[in-house]
Amino acid sequence: MARRLGGQTAELTAKIGLVAYASAVGKKEGEGPLGRGFDRVFEDSYLGQDSWEKAEVALIQSAFDGCLNKAPVGLKRPDAVLGGDLLNQCVSSTLALKDSGLPYYGLYGACSTMAEGLALAALLIDSGSLRSACALTGSHFCASERQYRFPLEYGGQRTPTAQWTVTGAGAVMLAAGRTGARVTHVTTGRIVDAGITDAANMGAAMAPAAFDTLTAHFQDTGRDFDDYDAVFTGDLGAIGHDILQDLLQKDGRSPGLKYYDCGVLIYDLKTQDVHAGGSGCGCSAAVLTGHILPAMERGVWRRVLFAGTGALMSPLTCQQGFAIPGVCHAVAIERED
Amino acid sequence: MARRLGGQTAELTAKIGLVAYASAVGKKEGEGPLGRGFDRVFEDSYLGQDSWEKAEVALIQSAFDGCLNKAPVGLKRPDAVLGGDLLNQCVSSTLALKDSGLPYYGLYGACSTMAEGLALAALLIDSGSLRSACALTGSHFCASERQYRFPLEYGGQRTPTAQWTVTGAGAVMLAAGRTGARVTHVTTGRIVDAGITDAANMGAAMAPAAFDTLTAHFQDTGRDFDDYDAVFTGDLGAIGHDILQDLLQKDGRSPGLKYYDCGVLIYDLKTQDVHAGGSGCGCSAAVLTGHILPAMERGVWRRVLFAGTGALMSPLTCQQGFAIPGVCHAVAIERED
Repeated sequence: MARRLGGQTAELTAKIGLVAYASAVGKKEGEGPLGRGFDRVFEDSYLGQDSWEKAEVALIQSAFDGCLNKAPVGLKRPDAVLGGDLLNQCVSSTLALKDSGLPYYGLYGACSTMAEGLALAALLIDSGSLRSACALTGSHFCASERQYRFPLEYGGQRTPTAQWTVTGAGAVMLAAGRTGARVTHVTTGRIVDAGITDAANMGAAMAPAAFDTLTAHFQDTGRDFDDYDAVFTGDLGAIGHDILQDLLQKDGRSPGLKYYDCGVLIYDLKTQDVHAGGSGCGCSAAVLTGHILPAMERGVWRRVLFAGTGALMSPLTCQQGFAIPGVCHAVAIERED
Repeated sequence: MARRLGGQTAELTAKIGLVAYASAVGKKEGEGPLGRGFDRVFEDSYLGQDSWEKAEVALIQSAFDGCLNKAPVGLKRPDAVLGGDLLNQCVSSTLALKDSGLPYYGLYGACSTMAEGLALAALLIDSGSLRSACALTGSHFCASERQYRFPLEYGGQRTPTAQWTVTGAGAVMLAAGRTGARVTHVTTGRIVDAGITDAANMGAAMAPAAFDTLTAHFQDTGRDFDDYDAVFTGDLGAIGHDILQDLLQKDGRSPGLKYYDCGVLIYDLKTQDVHAGGSGCGCSAAVLTGHILPAMERGVWRRVLFAGTGALMSPLTCQQGFAIPGVCHAVAIERED
């Protein structure tokens, strides 16, 4: 049984291990600072498919297959899969999973989907209804650009606050009663609307949600940055990262050098022409599975807070004058062995 | 703790009650056979807003507010909300909830969202991480038509197999340790691709998924139609309803007069010009909250299986030649008192 710690946080008392994980990314991500950590790097932006949307499907399938291949014997077929993505009606995760024959819960957490999936998978295993579950998501730069902004052929100029949607995917298998890295706490995010209306400044739109969830997590658990070896936000990018640091410092917290953002880590912001950094469901999913969990396995960090962030917008809500609300779900991952 | 019964089903051992629920619908639904059961009927298709998408937001808010109003003292603020909808990036549920200040999990189950939300809410309460949760969803005919098919102004002719997206919303509050109607079993659906490519024949696309989930539920629980007072599918419509009956009969099961489809119930198919019947997230959500649960409260039925159905497609996947996979999540609801 999970133990409810406060308004938004549950502590998992069962041992729910992250028993396998895999990542798949595109060429640009492979050339970035974390490039060597990813399981698969696809040089061809189409992944051999005839559309970018089909390429996104193939990318998610690659991460899913990689995760199943690495899973221990007896866990090759999870009891359920929890997934979602950015394409309209979450079709890339659906199509990636449609031939799996596995029970499936579709999620929509925008770029926070990996954290949402991990959180729900851990809680469902904790409830006893599942013994194992796979959380997965992904995104593709070219498919996202034409859906959310402009067709690439249009050659629109990007503003300095814009972020680059990561071409990447990640899949994580969780199972009951396993040693190694495990989910210990889940903090469910609230929707926070900071009034940002610029769809090219999502870091600013999401940072207040990240602040809200981190604050709730620390209040509910009695922890602070000192209790973690590293704290990761999903895809605030350079601007959102700085806004969150400001918000935290004004609130009396000192993130120091322990706070990272996956959108800042995945690219070299000076040389890779990605403006404010990475974004997209694939951003935190690929960094979790290609950087954070491998580093935990090597003993670099033992206690990590993974706080996926999402901008809950669509082109239509921007056209109709709505601001862009953000959400952030946080999952504490620890290893004791 | 939930008890895992088989491949797809969990039995909830804790008493997780449906303590409050509310519905809100449009004029056409108010004029239908179930019209008198809905909490709110809005004559104005815009609900006083300046766009149909904003009207969908207002509709979901109406159901949510109605549910909170009817909730017992002490349950006016659920520990979390689980919601989703059909609009791109699930924005109507997000916008309806953004000022609530409540922890939120975004779902995408297409028209099965109410069943998915009920299932996950019940399992999360069972895990101990939440004491109460609200599942909600909705849809709006005019907003859906212009997103999925044609602008209404175009005046396109509808095929006989087409279904009419319900303008409606429903919200259900679940809480631990409550008497009355409660969730007893959850059967998680698998994605089933029957190869249907006609986006105007979603009943045919979803019926095989409903068959798959009902079969799994009956196998896992050892139950059959005889064990239920009534079994409801979400929005197969008249054509999908008949296909499912055929599939069940060929498999040796006799649904008899106990099997209903929410999309058939909500309109008068002879006089309301809706072709094959209702569809959309709001269809099963409004029928559950405006018909099924009130009837259970009156003692008409004591044991019901609610099987939400969803077509996992987008205009883009249809354009790119994909078939339309379906999914169906089933929730058993019983009252003992």
